[in-house]
Amino acid sequence: MENKLRVGILGATGAVGQKFIEWLDGHPWFEVTALIASERSAGKPYREAVNWIGSRPIPEAIAAMPVESATTLPDCDFVFSGLDASVAGELERRFAEAGYPVISNARNYRMHDDVPLLIPEINPDHTKLIEQQRWGEGFIVTNPNCSTVGLVCALKPLVDRFGVEAVQVTTLQALSGAGYPGVPSLDILGNVVPFIKGEEEKIASEPKKLLGTLKEGRVEPFPVTISAQCTRVPVLEGHLECVSVRLKRKADVADVREAFLSFESPLAGLDLPSAPARLLEVFDDPAFPQPRRHAELGRGMTVSVGRIRPCEVMDVKFVALVHNTLRGAAGGAVLNAELLVRQGYLAARTRGKRQPTIPALA
Amino acid sequence: MENKLRVGILGATGAVGQKFIEWLDGHPWFEVTALIASERSAGKPYREAVNWIGSRPIPEAIAAMPVESATTLPDCDFVFSGLDASVAGELERRFAEAGYPVISNARNYRMHDDVPLLIPEINPDHTKLIEQQRWGEGFIVTNPNCSTVGLVCALKPLVDRFGVEAVQVTTLQALSGAGYPGVPSLDILGNVVPFIKGEEEKIASEPKKLLGTLKEGRVEPFPVTISAQCTRVPVLEGHLECVSVRLKRKADVADVREAFLSFESPLAGLDLPSAPARLLEVFDDPAFPQPRRHAELGRGMTVSVGRIRPCEVMDVKFVALVHNTLRGAAGGAVLNAELLVRQGYLAARTRGKRQPTIPALA
Amino acid sequence: MENKLRVGILGATGAVGQKFIEWLDGHPWFEVTALIASERSAGKPYREAVNWIGSRPIPEAIAAMPVESATTLPDCDFVFSGLDASVAGELERRFAEAGYPVISNARNYRMHDDVPLLIPEINPDHTKLIEQQRWGEGFIVTNPNCSTVGLVCALKPLVDRFGVEAVQVTTLQALSGAGYPGVPSLDILGNVVPFIKGEEEKIASEPKKLLGTLKEGRVEPFPVTISAQCTRVPVLEGHLECVSVRLKRKADVADVREAFLSFESPLAGLDLPSAPARLLEVFDDPAFPQPRRHAELGRGMTVSVGRIRPCEVMDVKFVALVHNTLRGAAGGAVLNAELLVRQGYLAARTRGKRQPTIPALA
Amino acid sequence: MENKLRVGILGATGAVGQKFIEWLDGHPWFEVTALIASERSAGKPYREAVNWIGSRPIPEAIAAMPVESATTLPDCDFVFSGLDASVAGELERRFAEAGYPVISNARNYRMHDDVPLLIPEINPDHTKLIEQQRWGEGFIVTNPNCSTVGLVCALKPLVDRFGVEAVQVTTLQALSGAGYPGVPSLDILGNVVPFIKGEEEKIASEPKKLLGTLKEGRVEPFPVTISAQCTRVPVLEGHLECVSVRLKRKADVADVREAFLSFESPLAGLDLPSAPARLLEVFDDPAFPQPRRHAELGRGMTVSVGRIRPCEVMDVKFVALVHNTLRGAAGGAVLNAELLVRQGYLAARTRGKRQPTIPALA
Repeated sequence: MENKLRVGILGATGAVGQKFIEWLDGHPWFEVTALIASERSAGKPYREAVNWIGSRPIPEAIAAMPVESATTLPDCDFVFSGLDASVAGELERRFAEAGYPVISNARNYRMHDDVPLLIPEINPDHTKLIEQQRWGEGFIVTNPNCSTVGLVCALKPLVDRFGVEAVQVTTLQALSGAGYPGVPSLDILGNVVPFIKGEEEKIASEPKKLLGTLKEGRVEPFPVTISAQCTRVPVLEGHLECVSVRLKRKADVADVREAFLSFESPLAGLDLPSAPARLLEVFDDPAFPQPRRHAELGRGMTVSVGRIRPCEVMDVKFVALVHNTLRGAAGGAVLNAELLVRQGYLAARTRGKRQPTIPALA
Repeated sequence: MENKLRVGILGATGAVGQKFIEWLDGHPWFEVTALIASERSAGKPYREAVNWIGSRPIPEAIAAMPVESATTLPDCDFVFSGLDASVAGELERRFAEAGYPVISNARNYRMHDDVPLLIPEINPDHTKLIEQQRWGEGFIVTNPNCSTVGLVCALKPLVDRFGVEAVQVTTLQALSGAGYPGVPSLDILGNVVPFIKGEEEKIASEPKKLLGTLKEGRVEPFPVTISAQCTRVPVLEGHLECVSVRLKRKADVADVREAFLSFESPLAGLDLPSAPARLLEVFDDPAFPQPRRHAELGRGMTVSVGRIRPCEVMDVKFVALVHNTLRGAAGGAVLNAELLVRQGYLAARTRGKRQPTIPALA
Repeated sequence: MENKLRVGILGATGAVGQKFIEWLDGHPWFEVTALIASERSAGKPYREAVNWIGSRPIPEAIAAMPVESATTLPDCDFVFSGLDASVAGELERRFAEAGYPVISNARNYRMHDDVPLLIPEINPDHTKLIEQQRWGEGFIVTNPNCSTVGLVCALKPLVDRFGVEAVQVTTLQALSGAGYPGVPSLDILGNVVPFIKGEEEKIASEPKKLLGTLKEGRVEPFPVTISAQCTRVPVLEGHLECVSVRLKRKADVADVREAFLSFESPLAGLDLPSAPARLLEVFDDPAFPQPRRHAELGRGMTVSVGRIRPCEVMDVKFVALVHNTLRGAAGGAVLNAELLVRQGYLAARTRGKRQPTIPALA
Repeated sequence: MENKLRVGILGATGAVGQKFIEWLDGHPWFEVTALIASERSAGKPYREAVNWIGSRPIPEAIAAMPVESATTLPDCDFVFSGLDASVAGELERRFAEAGYPVISNARNYRMHDDVPLLIPEINPDHTKLIEQQRWGEGFIVTNPNCSTVGLVCALKPLVDRFGVEAVQVTTLQALSGAGYPGVPSLDILGNVVPFIKGEEEKIASEPKKLLGTLKEGRVEPFPVTISAQCTRVPVLEGHLECVSVRLKRKADVADVREAFLSFESPLAGLDLPSAPARLLEVFDDPAFPQPRRHAELGRGMTVSVGRIRPCEVMDVKFVALVHNTLRGAAGGAVLNAELLVRQGYLAARTRGKRQPTIPALA
């Protein structure tokens, strides 16, 4: 255990914080050594401070660990942030200033010029933005909104091969995306809510940065027009997205299917523990993918696509599915951290400490 | 009761047939006098032949009525057809040939050149096509697919005022649209299915006929390009549709909202019993309309719209909601029949019978 | 309108308060003239103070009415209380002391010796307890817990005819019973929660008072042993109860069915507007009653029973269903008030005011 | 692979058959070598014959395997039967007569005098009944109804320590218990159905045999009175049971909790691959166990209990939870087969074949 990087979790008792703890349980490179939450929880053992909503029990080592308040500096090499946006802005900055790398799931810094908005398979070179940050040894790296992740992973092969000019997407989003307690059951049982605050704006803007090009220390946004309509549906995990795309170069359904199938992840060979064997799974059964059946593919890190067909209005339409709290939140953030380890941005902070043993690449 | 038009129901034991019976219970102009179903049911009292799925009990007069087979000619002035498409083609033709007006919910004759595809508020003049039909006194009139109805009712004011060139729509459709037993609960509980067989094709084609212009005994299709993505969601009643529209003449959100609000139904003054006070209800609350809360507006005959906003890719986007088994099926078909009465196409068939008393217009 | 009794609603913005407003819309005897809620809401028009969860819109006259705080004395003849138990104890006492009759749905005073716990069809004479209360012209009358209502209505015919010694009941309770926002969707979608705080205790105790005998100004509790197991299920409205009963005098299934069918409500002839035509509906279809299909029977005021069969351990078992927010809350409380009007306990308070016109009995 | 026992699956394309295939994927002792289904499926590769409802894909080796009809004798050492009761009686008998051991999940032979009704942790000695069967080398062993399994596993420690005289149980049963397509979504979304055909009778009778004593080649039934009320709820997997028990010797809640905790499985030391580490999991959180959160404990083979408390009518009441298609069906049947291997009842049938290598016990 001493050989692992020591990790703190900001917002450890929240819904995303819990997902971090589940995902990091048994992680080969990282071990959780600090749980940071609000004053109210500070001092209590985690099991008492948390309203644990997972179906598996709290990992034993975590259950007894005392929760710390954000006013102390935790003993760890970097932090994951599952903070709510209402406090993430202030707290993440403070941790970065104090010298901690902050791997954040919050939306606050996503669109800042010098903060990477990162999906390792899509834009691994954007981590160079870290070098623009002026917070001493600390820095902030973010992952995108959960719906954005699914959309961008599906778009990337089309961008690379045909060019993409415009996108229409309607999302059917899972309840877990609203956190806990989140959506009241009286609002959603046998119902659909055609509105999720702030979501459509994020989907319209974040992909431009993710698909953008790093030039002279800045990300030049990818020129694409995106229109999103977001709905909440009574599903536990997994955002489904109905996508229509206008391509630059004409392509038929077979071309698009082939582009999905042959997409090569830039992570191949890096042996990142959280990377799925395949970024994209392509379904030919017209009734697939479905959130309850397929969100967990690749331990929740694979994005599924299906129903590829011509679009009468644009060029091609298809359906994509992403696990919103794994690939779209905790799992995605951990994968970001793994990439940063391989790229040398993350290492043991405390001087004199033995560096953790990350398996060398072949 | 003798003053009412006497009505037969084809497919009386099916899910749509049951909705006809519920809707016609207490109808001021029509009374159900014949229940037609398969050989298997013939001879039994309705209450024994049917697997009644409604929450209100079977209307008393209907419960004891014997079911007839389709081989006999029922004693009624016209028939409603809730038949499954697999048998509707053959049976509806046979009834029309035998002299019965057939007001059908089935898809089989919708796109036939001489058969009206009718929404009374949208294209009441299309009933003139009846005069092209060559089946003696019988004829066939159809209502559109349930999702089409919601879409076209919402599009009509925009077509009239701004022109509509192209439409993208993603539907979130209720379970009742699949009939009974329909969707297995194991497929849909906590899930979404991104496919409904044949649905996207109907939505792409039927609006062109509905919005088309009657010229020299033919409907000239309305030139619009429509792309649909259809999904099934765990909702009982009410199809929600996320719509994006490219307009001919530019219009902002306020213009579109005003167009919805000021739409004038051509039925005003006709006093049709099933017509809602307003065809369109406009919501300003961004979380509305919702199927469970708003599908029943106007006794299920009102179409709701909301979330009107600019579309980054096309011109404007919004959400529409239609009650799929009322406005989109039984209620819509009955409204069609009511219009036909006012237009003089429906009357008592049996010679010598006293004509039913339909209240005169003021 | 001047002829109606003027009604205030305590807790007007809460879930139960909203149900009161819906139920009283168009009520022939009562009109809402005061909406009382927390300081935070005071002064705002109701439509702005409330998070309206009903599917029908807020009644027009109510929507614009300003909300008052509980510190002022509202201009009305009596109040309904939909207050949460955390504040009901203090506030209801204060209103009673100030001279208002308080018709309460809260649990706080239910088991007080001088407070009637009332179901008009079960124990209409218990209102005499009002005369024990020493609050000047004010008094408090309560209705039971929603599950208790269903159970006691079903037990009453058996108590009268055979005697009841012991009862086992397992409840499957609807989400609306937990108020709004209530149960988080992440806890209950595709799930069941085998626990509802305080519920089993209420079901074990309240029926003893309801079925008890009024003697010398006190209710002598009915001697019965009740064991309850309460679960929460993903249902919107309607508590289902699986009941087993040990009888004093042996009775077979036919006897029990007959007792249910022939139960005579003591309200017959009183013409109370909220009383259902029949207190009990008996189903012979073994799959009935079901909450979604039958909770609304009798406008939600009828209790349904079915599946009457011998119990291997006790004597007879059956299933009962009650609409928890109508018969079990707002509707039940209004029915209580209607009985009190007929009994003369409720009348116009303000001296000099014309008494409201309640139709005389035949 | 040659070292494993070769297994056929009767009813391989049905819902239970599919669960067998999932459960046996990667099984260390058994390998599926024959898939038997109806004539209609015979000859097709499994992937084409089946409507696969699982979320994980069909195991690769199985997907391409041709389905056989029940008229041929498959090449395997024994068969699991997931047949529907309508055909299981005839087909299982035929396979037993042909010399195959039949490990069945169907109800047809459960109560036959010479057929073991088996839960390995409860009555492992009942397998001696096999020796009463007169079908040459073939025989039939059955597992109980899914609800029975949960109930009996929870009762067993109480039977052993205190004696049990009577049991009242209300079940809240999952949709998967009805097979596929099973319950129509229109019947169960936001609803509860208080009836499951034949279920209450099985729960009332099967425990008597399971808890019975083997004497002179017969099972003497355990004298207990059981009354069950069974309901269907919108849950995917996991039957919840609300149980009240009358004990022979008085015991308080702490005694009962201790009896659950200290129950010792007779399988300890047998190293059966499908046996869970613990038969019973005891929850102290009053809101647990819950089907969606806890049905999968112990890979779906652990039975959970919680909410232990005094019963006002009987002695003690509690809640139990069982995974109905794993412990209650496929997993339970495979565990039965594993016990039979250890007991020597199951071995390679074909003479001259090398016996499979089952790891020896320590």
